[in-house]
Amino acid sequence: MTGPVDLNADLGEGFGRWQLTDDEGLLSVVTSANVACGFHAGDAATMRRVCELAAARGVVVGAQVSYRDLAGFGRRAMDVPSAELTAEVAYQIGALEVFARAAGARVAYVKPHGALYNRAVRDEEQARAVVDGVLLAGARLPVLGLPGSRLLEAAEKAGLRAVPEAFADRAYTDEGTLVPRDRESAVVSDPETVVERSLDLARSGEVTALSGARIRVRARSLCLHGDTPGAVELARRVRARLASAGVPVEAFA
Amino acid sequence: MTGPVDLNADLGEGFGRWQLTDDEGLLSVVTSANVACGFHAGDAATMRRVCELAAARGVVVGAQVSYRDLAGFGRRAMDVPSAELTAEVAYQIGALEVFARAAGARVAYVKPHGALYNRAVRDEEQARAVVDGVLLAGARLPVLGLPGSRLLEAAEKAGLRAVPEAFADRAYTDEGTLVPRDRESAVVSDPETVVERSLDLARSGEVTALSGARIRVRARSLCLHGDTPGAVELARRVRARLASAGVPVEAFA
Amino acid sequence: MTGPVDLNADLGEGFGRWQLTDDEGLLSVVTSANVACGFHAGDAATMRRVCELAAARGVVVGAQVSYRDLAGFGRRAMDVPSAELTAEVAYQIGALEVFARAAGARVAYVKPHGALYNRAVRDEEQARAVVDGVLLAGARLPVLGLPGSRLLEAAEKAGLRAVPEAFADRAYTDEGTLVPRDRESAVVSDPETVVERSLDLARSGEVTALSGARIRVRARSLCLHGDTPGAVELARRVRARLASAGVPVEAFA
Amino acid sequence: MTGPVDLNADLGEGFGRWQLTDDEGLLSVVTSANVACGFHAGDAATMRRVCELAAARGVVVGAQVSYRDLAGFGRRAMDVPSAELTAEVAYQIGALEVFARAAGARVAYVKPHGALYNRAVRDEEQARAVVDGVLLAGARLPVLGLPGSRLLEAAEKAGLRAVPEAFADRAYTDEGTLVPRDRESAVVSDPETVVERSLDLARSGEVTALSGARIRVRARSLCLHGDTPGAVELARRVRARLASAGVPVEAFA
Repeated sequence: MTGPVDLNADLGEGFGRWQLTDDEGLLSVVTSANVACGFHAGDAATMRRVCELAAARGVVVGAQVSYRDLAGFGRRAMDVPSAELTAEVAYQIGALEVFARAAGARVAYVKPHGALYNRAVRDEEQARAVVDGVLLAGARLPVLGLPGSRLLEAAEKAGLRAVPEAFADRAYTDEGTLVPRDRESAVVSDPETVVERSLDLARSGEVTALSGARIRVRARSLCLHGDTPGAVELARRVRARLASAGVPVEAFA
Repeated sequence: MTGPVDLNADLGEGFGRWQLTDDEGLLSVVTSANVACGFHAGDAATMRRVCELAAARGVVVGAQVSYRDLAGFGRRAMDVPSAELTAEVAYQIGALEVFARAAGARVAYVKPHGALYNRAVRDEEQARAVVDGVLLAGARLPVLGLPGSRLLEAAEKAGLRAVPEAFADRAYTDEGTLVPRDRESAVVSDPETVVERSLDLARSGEVTALSGARIRVRARSLCLHGDTPGAVELARRVRARLASAGVPVEAFA
Repeated sequence: MTGPVDLNADLGEGFGRWQLTDDEGLLSVVTSANVACGFHAGDAATMRRVCELAAARGVVVGAQVSYRDLAGFGRRAMDVPSAELTAEVAYQIGALEVFARAAGARVAYVKPHGALYNRAVRDEEQARAVVDGVLLAGARLPVLGLPGSRLLEAAEKAGLRAVPEAFADRAYTDEGTLVPRDRESAVVSDPETVVERSLDLARSGEVTALSGARIRVRARSLCLHGDTPGAVELARRVRARLASAGVPVEAFA
Repeated sequence: MTGPVDLNADLGEGFGRWQLTDDEGLLSVVTSANVACGFHAGDAATMRRVCELAAARGVVVGAQVSYRDLAGFGRRAMDVPSAELTAEVAYQIGALEVFARAAGARVAYVKPHGALYNRAVRDEEQARAVVDGVLLAGARLPVLGLPGSRLLEAAEKAGLRAVPEAFADRAYTDEGTLVPRDRESAVVSDPETVVERSLDLARSGEVTALSGARIRVRARSLCLHGDTPGAVELARRVRARLASAGVPVEAFA
């Protein structure tokens, strides 16, 4: 990631009466907003509000598409037939596009959420179904995902821009994959370490794996988590550290 | 309705495993398709398929927007706050737009469904909320509804084209309103009578009310019902009768 | 309310990933828990957990039944046909009963939520439909609601126990009805005043109306709100004040 | 299956406006009704009606529990965490129990639907989660499923009665498993053959596999499909053939 770095976060992940993410706080830090589109979170009024806030701050809007699963917050992998998944992805992009456009912006990229994101790392069929949904939606949008994932491969194959992202708060294996969440050491919880890993990733394009080895992590964007206490404050520190080190923070889209 | 007449019907009103309307049959007759957008019916794959079929037959696609109510098929009036209703209407239009565009068409008008349609006849606040949703969606689409309704008034006030429709299979009062469905004589069930009333409406712009009086019914479109046995056959007869009488059958949009 | 007073609050009003109420905190204060049953909030795992917590603390479990409306949190009045509403109420009671029983307790009363609660104050048809749902569920459960409401009338008529409740944090009219929420003075926000009004209601069966007049409010239970910051702390103060004044705090069921 | 044979079918699989199964027709034939509980199909009013019809005809009521997936009709396998799946299974059983009891019957067994049924054949964790849901519901109900499945193993291990079923309209491998649906020869579509295989299964406890070999199929119930044209007529013929051959047709529960 030698060059500018994008900061992305999940936003608008409430639903009706329920709130989850500090949308205003995060929008003052990130350069790309992954906006929930109603399938795992994100009622229509929230989508509208987040698009307006994002547009007002110059934050780029992306469609955070998901399995249809409000009860599971999109975290339950589902065997959705390709044709249905493709249509559902396009549906979500179209719905968000209305609010982005009304706010004077546009949907500028697509990022799958939760279980769909994880599934599309290895499942070629679902990866292709997601990309087909992006193509169906028509604007040939970039796709944000894990480097080396079937998703980014499928996007490139379809002629779409594939944008790799890294996670400063997740441990990496020597192969450059994320340590699974059920492993104790999967998450980096010390804020200062997260800040330093962010800078490391941004400046060197490398990160220290769990084993201590230095590994390359190809990434144009850093994913910041927004649903934990202190998330906004941590995001601010990451951005400030990058700025003080002279790393340009810029949206990729 | 001296001039061309449009024939519209509700389409794509299945959901997942469930089917309701004979979409292919109706699309061979009507000039405008009110496509369900997922809130009362219409999963994403069905929306895609109906848009493709409609585009292939040159049938104009409209967004049939509804309350969020799958269990009640959008037939339960709901006190949805205006801001939420506006956002929900825009969401549905945007979702459908993706499939219309992918099929080489576009969403060309909006018609509320079921309880929202009925409520927007008299409820000024909801009528305005629906129109605000259309405006939010950005394309300044025509609105299809009942002549004299708050909905069409609100559309006109907003500078949108307000398209009145008539029902050949419903009885009218002397004031030109529909006889409520809970009245025994509300529905005209004899097919031949429906065919003749269609022609009457199209040629004279008048219809015989329940009292026997002749009344004016300003309408540019006739609504055909698609969810009853024999619906497609009846629709065919209406269209054939209009054609044989020299009435041009043309979409309004 | 000369005699023991019950304290009830809405609980388990999260859904999947989303949390709303401080269930553990409230269960350490109230004597009756209105548990959400999945229609406006309350996924199955949450229902189970809340029932276990309630049973462990000796708090009585009630079914907080609602319109089917997750997106609107059950706050949108709906014209649900009586037969459907009755079946939906019974469905929710039955679902909760499983978790109450598994925890060694039982569903001991029913209280409608949000828009259904408000509608059943004046709408005789829906009030009866709710009561029919309680009867259908079979256990002849008490119904908790507003004194003078159609709901409590219908419950009594059906031979069910009708339990009136009062709100210490809401302003009352001279007629003993609640000042509508859209009026500025509708809510009593000063904690100390709420505490004193609670004691007043419990001891005298009267409250000072907005006009300054003293009015009778027949109530066996006080409803405490759980979804605001400081709710648990306020509930604790109310309970402590009642205790220090010698008012017995006891569930009604 | 030397002894009496049960005939089971899925019922009440409509939702709101949508109908799927000919509930009245099937209830005149089967001895056990797998009633949809609202997660893949089956609104509350339909559940009530089916329970009343079943009770009136002496048909045993079972809970057909499913993943929460209306859009996919419960046919999309889902990675639901065990605790959530257990609670969701119990929720559905409890909801149905209300209507069974109100009709003078009771829920007498549990059968998973669609993708959950298939998943629980091999997935030990989900099989156990389903059984835990049955146990949580409290009545120690029998579980209906595929012989040799993890589901029936888990049921037996928990001390529940495990009831194996067979499919006269599905091809079997030499190992006694069903030929996967994506294989061309998976489904037996000739009605006469289905009738004869039913009798064969009931009388001999064996069936002719796809290879021509005779294999044992341990089963106490035959599953009849109700969602195809001619389903009721075929079910009638199966039952008549069994009767004319002197095989007693009796519910297992």
